[in-house]
Amino acid sequence: MLIVMESRATKEMVKRVCDEIEAAGLKAHPIPGSIRTAIGVTGNKEQVDADRILAQEGVKDIIHVTKPFKLVSREFYPDNTVVDVSGVLVGGRELVAMAGPCAVESREQCLIIAEHVARAGAKLFRGGAYKPRTSPYSFQGLGEEGLKILAEVREKYGLRIVTEAIDTEILDVVSEYADLIQIGARNMQNFSLLKKAGRQPKPVLLKRGMSATLEEFLMAAEYIMNEGNRNIILCERGVRTFADHTRNTLDLSAIPFVKRTSHLPIIVDPSHGTGKRHKILPLSRAAIAAGADGLLIEVHHDPANALSDGPQSITPDMFDDLVGEVRAIGSVLGRTVNEENT
Amino acid sequence: MLIVMESRATKEMVKRVCDEIEAAGLKAHPIPGSIRTAIGVTGNKEQVDADRILAQEGVKDIIHVTKPFKLVSREFYPDNTVVDVSGVLVGGRELVAMAGPCAVESREQCLIIAEHVARAGAKLFRGGAYKPRTSPYSFQGLGEEGLKILAEVREKYGLRIVTEAIDTEILDVVSEYADLIQIGARNMQNFSLLKKAGRQPKPVLLKRGMSATLEEFLMAAEYIMNEGNRNIILCERGVRTFADHTRNTLDLSAIPFVKRTSHLPIIVDPSHGTGKRHKILPLSRAAIAAGADGLLIEVHHDPANALSDGPQSITPDMFDDLVGEVRAIGSVLGRTVNEENT
Amino acid sequence: MLIVMESRATKEMVKRVCDEIEAAGLKAHPIPGSIRTAIGVTGNKEQVDADRILAQEGVKDIIHVTKPFKLVSREFYPDNTVVDVSGVLVGGRELVAMAGPCAVESREQCLIIAEHVARAGAKLFRGGAYKPRTSPYSFQGLGEEGLKILAEVREKYGLRIVTEAIDTEILDVVSEYADLIQIGARNMQNFSLLKKAGRQPKPVLLKRGMSATLEEFLMAAEYIMNEGNRNIILCERGVRTFADHTRNTLDLSAIPFVKRTSHLPIIVDPSHGTGKRHKILPLSRAAIAAGADGLLIEVHHDPANALSDGPQSITPDMFDDLVGEVRAIGSVLGRTVNEENT
Amino acid sequence: MLIVMESRATKEMVKRVCDEIEAAGLKAHPIPGSIRTAIGVTGNKEQVDADRILAQEGVKDIIHVTKPFKLVSREFYPDNTVVDVSGVLVGGRELVAMAGPCAVESREQCLIIAEHVARAGAKLFRGGAYKPRTSPYSFQGLGEEGLKILAEVREKYGLRIVTEAIDTEILDVVSEYADLIQIGARNMQNFSLLKKAGRQPKPVLLKRGMSATLEEFLMAAEYIMNEGNRNIILCERGVRTFADHTRNTLDLSAIPFVKRTSHLPIIVDPSHGTGKRHKILPLSRAAIAAGADGLLIEVHHDPANALSDGPQSITPDMFDDLVGEVRAIGSVLGRTVNEENT
Repeated sequence: MLIVMESRATKEMVKRVCDEIEAAGLKAHPIPGSIRTAIGVTGNKEQVDADRILAQEGVKDIIHVTKPFKLVSREFYPDNTVVDVSGVLVGGRELVAMAGPCAVESREQCLIIAEHVARAGAKLFRGGAYKPRTSPYSFQGLGEEGLKILAEVREKYGLRIVTEAIDTEILDVVSEYADLIQIGARNMQNFSLLKKAGRQPKPVLLKRGMSATLEEFLMAAEYIMNEGNRNIILCERGVRTFADHTRNTLDLSAIPFVKRTSHLPIIVDPSHGTGKRHKILPLSRAAIAAGADGLLIEVHHDPANALSDGPQSITPDMFDDLVGEVRAIGSVLGRTVNEENT
Repeated sequence: MLIVMESRATKEMVKRVCDEIEAAGLKAHPIPGSIRTAIGVTGNKEQVDADRILAQEGVKDIIHVTKPFKLVSREFYPDNTVVDVSGVLVGGRELVAMAGPCAVESREQCLIIAEHVARAGAKLFRGGAYKPRTSPYSFQGLGEEGLKILAEVREKYGLRIVTEAIDTEILDVVSEYADLIQIGARNMQNFSLLKKAGRQPKPVLLKRGMSATLEEFLMAAEYIMNEGNRNIILCERGVRTFADHTRNTLDLSAIPFVKRTSHLPIIVDPSHGTGKRHKILPLSRAAIAAGADGLLIEVHHDPANALSDGPQSITPDMFDDLVGEVRAIGSVLGRTVNEENT
Repeated sequence: MLIVMESRATKEMVKRVCDEIEAAGLKAHPIPGSIRTAIGVTGNKEQVDADRILAQEGVKDIIHVTKPFKLVSREFYPDNTVVDVSGVLVGGRELVAMAGPCAVESREQCLIIAEHVARAGAKLFRGGAYKPRTSPYSFQGLGEEGLKILAEVREKYGLRIVTEAIDTEILDVVSEYADLIQIGARNMQNFSLLKKAGRQPKPVLLKRGMSATLEEFLMAAEYIMNEGNRNIILCERGVRTFADHTRNTLDLSAIPFVKRTSHLPIIVDPSHGTGKRHKILPLSRAAIAAGADGLLIEVHHDPANALSDGPQSITPDMFDDLVGEVRAIGSVLGRTVNEENT
Repeated sequence: MLIVMESRATKEMVKRVCDEIEAAGLKAHPIPGSIRTAIGVTGNKEQVDADRILAQEGVKDIIHVTKPFKLVSREFYPDNTVVDVSGVLVGGRELVAMAGPCAVESREQCLIIAEHVARAGAKLFRGGAYKPRTSPYSFQGLGEEGLKILAEVREKYGLRIVTEAIDTEILDVVSEYADLIQIGARNMQNFSLLKKAGRQPKPVLLKRGMSATLEEFLMAAEYIMNEGNRNIILCERGVRTFADHTRNTLDLSAIPFVKRTSHLPIIVDPSHGTGKRHKILPLSRAAIAAGADGLLIEVHHDPANALSDGPQSITPDMFDDLVGEVRAIGSVLGRTVNEENT
């Protein structure tokens, strides 16, 4: 941490800040300059409260040198974390496709789509039983009935289930049914939900918030890990910008950043990331080429009658093409898709 | 709603879309153009599912003509809603100042600050007992003990209490103690929390999400109203942009937009909206000048030792100045501050 | 400047960076920490090239402690610069209203509007003779003929003229006719134009770019000052964000930032800043309340037939109201509007 | 175009708007609804001025159904435009690598880098002789001397030259030396420069502005085409967002959008798009996987001593790897890199 003093700060002010730092068990290194004094702070094993220092008289700015996260950082765990989702490994050599409808609408719908995506090479089936919707008048999901349908899909096709827990109360029942618990973009900083997800045994798929920096994204994962659950898969799903040709702006540079900074796996959701069917294939290829560990794709056998997200759902046939293309791109990077059945 | 067909769409595709619309009890008005056909849709009392139509073959785009909200719209309730917070009216002629520390740190801290802000003209005391923090290692609030301190502040100084409910479980106890329940920016689309807030009797202070459009903001309020609670105060607190000279970019144009579109009152939080102490006064004046119904201000008697948000807290003396300036600006608009004690 | 080394950086790498710094005539202060070493750099009278150091082996990041601008900074000139626009002072006690149509359309149009705004208290007349338009098929302005009309307006009503120079070639003729030369948002980083504007004698109105940080904004002004022209008026006109209820998001926090960081005056353009007629008045009041030195307002006597920006132009009657409200708000801050005729 | 009337608009107001439309030679289709009336407009061969209608009494909003560009649209030219850069084809089956330093620093520097990138498979050499820099105190380029060095590079290694024209005056000399004229992001809406670039014979590389929508980007290309120059290569180089882990946020979804909407080729600049050396390779692969027609890459043999953009320049060795990876990804999409020497 570096503390920048105002140019008009007196020696006494500088001294007071140094004392405060030393009192916190850290070491202060004043660096007098031609215009102003800066103070380097080292030994920050114990954290010093930046806000507290920033509020001292004569302090102009605080500059953080080290990142605030610990457990999720690669400096803490140098090796890649490979998350085991009921036997399917995410973050290893194998690229993992998670596919299915936006929302669980009916048993029939799920079985049709599941059969197809399983055959095409998906290992996880996605589908929302509880849906966070912008409007209170939109379809809000089938609830526990939807979870039972998902359980049947798992039984019948061997697909692992990923589905969203939209609040702390629903987390319990979702944790019972799901193999992988999704925390959605709108809940990325629902800290109560993160903590509770950290205290249950199932792995967690954490989606990036709409306007979350990557530091905030990793800090959200830190909340989960700090409670004891290390099995976290990150998911880039696009961020909100001025650009209006897509629903969100997919930020694929997040992948090399996460790979360098953290040991956690990261997948990409090009369905929400673009919101347009014809962009799913090119951006799925791009995500894999950029180093993603897998994809989360909305597939619907009848998009025109989907209860939600029809325009960004691809058909099962398009999903076949997608898996083929992803396999080809993956092989360039030494990665495989569904090489052997688990 | 207007449906725009692809230029290559056939007559059959156009017909199929029209049939779909009419089947939903609406009226379709095809408008053949030189390049493409558009279809106007009228009679949308019953809502048609845009996603469903967008997913039809030959459909290029859907354009919404009417806004999706109902209960919060001024067309629904033409007159201003004046929210009664235990006798303090928000949204009327009187400008309401809500002031206090970011977090409840101790009984002593709250009593010192409360005495001052009450004398200066504040009608509500703010202070978080449960704090949503980006890092799991930061101070998370005193919990119910904090609520008890707030209750003592109310008793002693007659200040009404506004404090945040960070999840559905905590909402119950917060609702017991608070006069006005705050739902924070990170929870603006925590729909479970919104619904539950709509089913309890206390008024709600709803803060705009970091990257929420005003349509999404009003839809979040719609969630609360739809459950039966009409006593909602909106709060603009800055949005996330590329601009890096402030913590957030305060969007004061939200005020005339909300005033025109909705009947709900709106206040401004320049403390979070800027994150810098020396910008609080100018932007408080600006907020009132733009038509806000009040302000939410972080005040701390000892910012250098505040446990959170010290750098954006103003001192009690600065708060005195602020109230004076706000009173002067308000009088230009025919509004008053603390004209008489309630 | 602070240099942050990689945690894996060797002593040799640290030494090499220190040598590089000392070779540039500066002083290096290595600060060894528990995880990594940081190097403080002082004495930066002569600038060291950050990119060059950042490219050294073992360097993770560079953190700038001092801002890159000099001439425009308040540390350089502690007192407010008051810009003299042919006798009208901008940046002093008096608030200056600049008003007129978006584009000069005809002699008649300009004379009608000018008569009105002059009577209402405007001191400058705005109007584009050369118009930067997103589409090549839109009206591009009357050119020099428009400048002649503006000259007539000046002669007849004593209004000073502010009009835009859209490129280096046109700057010459604009400089001949105008009292104040506008450089538009799209040209804020047209460095050739900035330099040339710095070498001619007329004052310059520099508008903030659509996605310019305030540092970039001030650096653009630095380009002009560096060529010898200190008479610069800054103009906040809204920035581009995800928010879609206004054409741009007016960033009024720019005002206290500029006032603190620079000695230059700053005005606000709420017409482009919002793009909506009914938001002009509330945001004009807000701008003045936040400390702006004046306003730039689009006024048209017949907005429905304006050749550009009709929807954001206010009528002469609305302008009367605006001046009245601005005068009232200004008086709260000890500022005046058109107190005496100059 | 669809015109949305206010709910309180009278029949007379609707009629007046319809008359205005018919007077412009278009056809008005009023669509009376339960809440408000909308008016469909067809036959928009001749453009109607939206601003003019929006300014009419009773008009709430205008919704554009068709895009404003013509010449650049795929509806106008259904087949891909393949741009011939002195014999190198961009937009065909072959992927084109353009590589070289940010700035031309010296003859020796250029020759070293050029030899390497030519051998590795680049077809164009990039290097700025005139540099747009945020600070007036930064290196501004060698000017015409730099252009002469670039000419020598072409002669010696057969590489075509792409270099930037930063203003209308410099365009003439750049057009003389370059094979492909770059218009930079900051100049994307410098309409004088666009028009002049449209009137000279060399092809143009047009970079997307920092906060340009894709509609504005294509409209900028329309300015060039409208003057007669159809040889335009678009370049995505990242946009400005809140995300702070990269210099800009690379928006790869622009590629499928441009491919669908326009006939023009599009390449990607991951050097500016990310600003970080270690992200160049993954995002180069991603760009090709998303369908880009080529890449623009900053390569420097000694980044630690580069006069600009050192941190985002890759070394010649990394460029070798990049070409290898791009070739492998390209082959998955049926595209080639440097298959045969031209």
